[in-house]
Amino acid sequence: MISDAARMIVLYHVESTAEAIASRAAAIAVEQSVEVSLAVIDDAFVREAVCGRVEDIREMAGGPFEVRIGLATATTGAEPGQLLNMLFGNTSLQPDVTLHDVLLPADLARAFAGPNHGIAGLRRRLSAERRALTCAALKPQGLSHDRLAALAGRLAQGGVDIIKDDHGLADQSYSRFADRVPACAAAVRRANDASGGRSRYAPSLSGDLDRLRHQIRIAAAEGVDTVLIAPMLVGLPAFHRLVRDFPEMAFLAHPAMAGAARIAPALLLGRLFRMLGADATIFPHTGGRFHYTLEECRNLAEVARGPFHGLNPTLPVPAGGMTRARVPEILKVYGPDMMVLIGGDLLAAGDSLVEAARGFTGDVARLSAPAAVSE
Amino acid sequence: MISDAARMIVLYHVESTAEAIASRAAAIAVEQSVEVSLAVIDDAFVREAVCGRVEDIREMAGGPFEVRIGLATATTGAEPGQLLNMLFGNTSLQPDVTLHDVLLPADLARAFAGPNHGIAGLRRRLSAERRALTCAALKPQGLSHDRLAALAGRLAQGGVDIIKDDHGLADQSYSRFADRVPACAAAVRRANDASGGRSRYAPSLSGDLDRLRHQIRIAAAEGVDTVLIAPMLVGLPAFHRLVRDFPEMAFLAHPAMAGAARIAPALLLGRLFRMLGADATIFPHTGGRFHYTLEECRNLAEVARGPFHGLNPTLPVPAGGMTRARVPEILKVYGPDMMVLIGGDLLAAGDSLVEAARGFTGDVARLSAPAAVSE
Repeated sequence: MISDAARMIVLYHVESTAEAIASRAAAIAVEQSVEVSLAVIDDAFVREAVCGRVEDIREMAGGPFEVRIGLATATTGAEPGQLLNMLFGNTSLQPDVTLHDVLLPADLARAFAGPNHGIAGLRRRLSAERRALTCAALKPQGLSHDRLAALAGRLAQGGVDIIKDDHGLADQSYSRFADRVPACAAAVRRANDASGGRSRYAPSLSGDLDRLRHQIRIAAAEGVDTVLIAPMLVGLPAFHRLVRDFPEMAFLAHPAMAGAARIAPALLLGRLFRMLGADATIFPHTGGRFHYTLEECRNLAEVARGPFHGLNPTLPVPAGGMTRARVPEILKVYGPDMMVLIGGDLLAAGDSLVEAARGFTGDVARLSAPAAVSE
Repeated sequence: MISDAARMIVLYHVESTAEAIASRAAAIAVEQSVEVSLAVIDDAFVREAVCGRVEDIREMAGGPFEVRIGLATATTGAEPGQLLNMLFGNTSLQPDVTLHDVLLPADLARAFAGPNHGIAGLRRRLSAERRALTCAALKPQGLSHDRLAALAGRLAQGGVDIIKDDHGLADQSYSRFADRVPACAAAVRRANDASGGRSRYAPSLSGDLDRLRHQIRIAAAEGVDTVLIAPMLVGLPAFHRLVRDFPEMAFLAHPAMAGAARIAPALLLGRLFRMLGADATIFPHTGGRFHYTLEECRNLAEVARGPFHGLNPTLPVPAGGMTRARVPEILKVYGPDMMVLIGGDLLAAGDSLVEAARGFTGDVARLSAPAAVSE
């Protein structure tokens, strides 16, 4: 259980003058806890245990101030939506503040419990103990499920570990989840049967909790054990509920809508998605269609898979317009504990898709074998 | 049903040079639809019906470009999370783009169906046909449910229409939802019985869909017919599901986490929350603790309550550090079709809370009576 006395330390970056920062920090501590003037509070428990506390203010070189606020973990009720509310609910409406990080007490992290499988679990399923993993995407949306299934089968023939739906594939009139998933799962199964491979098809889930559960049951009935989900679209509470309700399923988190927030990517896609149970987390690698810096990417990967109160590590999945030509560079940045996701660049191979996938998976296996990786 | 051929027109504001804007706009159209190079697409349906289309590019005076992209409404599957995914999922990760607005076809708006009660329904319940409505908040979090209930009773004695939980009140060890809600509901009921008033207590909901439904049932058993919910914390799919499942309940939307997005407030808190069913929408009025401009606030109110494919209007609720002294100004900005929310400034009255609430509700009634409102 969460102790009433425990605090999490929340790090905000605040644009301010040196004169104003102390009162601005105090205002954030109020906004993110009691949301009422301290003069009004006559209750000792509220004043001592619930009110936010400014723990530290530091001027950062050439940038904003780093403000550390201690917030009572009991205010989160150990519930994902309320955690986000306490970290950034109202302050997200104030443009001078970015949510940079949070130091979470062990009891809170363990209450959320993290990934059921993590890196080791994914490796076991795929019989890939040391090398980096590979991932490809089924798209474009609008293709019939037969055509998507044909793509899935060919990518499996090419040895891709996880073949995921594009995150745009949902439950649309032109491609119903209940039609697409059995077709794609069967195509991957057939390819595995022929090759002795262990490729996984990961369908994209969407909708409210009732629909999400229904979709997982459809997938599980087809032997699917890995799914794609965008926690910021379905809502963190629904994401966490599914992870806990379906412990046999591996969850691959997609960052859609996550970038709209003024929240550090390493915190949201790394730490928070991990704490709520993402077995793998997809994020934009630097130099693709998105704008994360190399440092942000490295940091995100380390937060996702480094030590964190004994929770299983989350597999980093750099993506976002990556090409086969960039595989050596990507492996050098992240080492073998990761999964390389190539989407459109593989599909562009057209009639040579199987060969292109074989080239991709072969490169990743060779370049991430223990002897090939220096760090 | 949603026609396969219909498009919604999405307006993005894009930072760009004049030379680069055409190709940037084309890239957004791809990112938000097929997410794969057009050269790869050999399917006529995908190319003609599903691919995003650049409809217009305009240079805005002294600012970014306005880019209009036509996206197939069928890609949304008429599901709230997937709608947000198609509007801004991946592009939210790109810092040069803001989601400014969307022109939604009538069939899509009607599929989501909007507020069950809207402004007229709220007015009927409260027997307040013409005047502006009033709202106050129970806080700080950490108070026992007895103390919160005492505050609720006194605000009801003062004639406040809707007495809502602070959005920080969830289901915490020191204040369980199942304890707080019966206590506060009973206090308001007693005050109504004594005064003949019609004050409403609106508890704050949190958690996943199972918990949200459980909380609504607890509230309904106490005669509660109005609830507070933060759609961006629980997730848009869960919010919409509740609105449809509990048509007798009025939903007051809270903006927590909504400001973290690079989405125009009028679109998210006004149009989208309305389409999904918010009977009232709370937003920061200009000049409080937040930074919305007066123009943004006016625009948000008009989007919330103006004509929209026959959907019920949503009641605008300006808030965010408002004081009793600002009531005349607020009424002048919005006219009587709104609800004034005063939080901490009322609670600061301490022992004189009932009188302060009477002063507030009396002022609003007098100043928003038809004769007093010029516009």
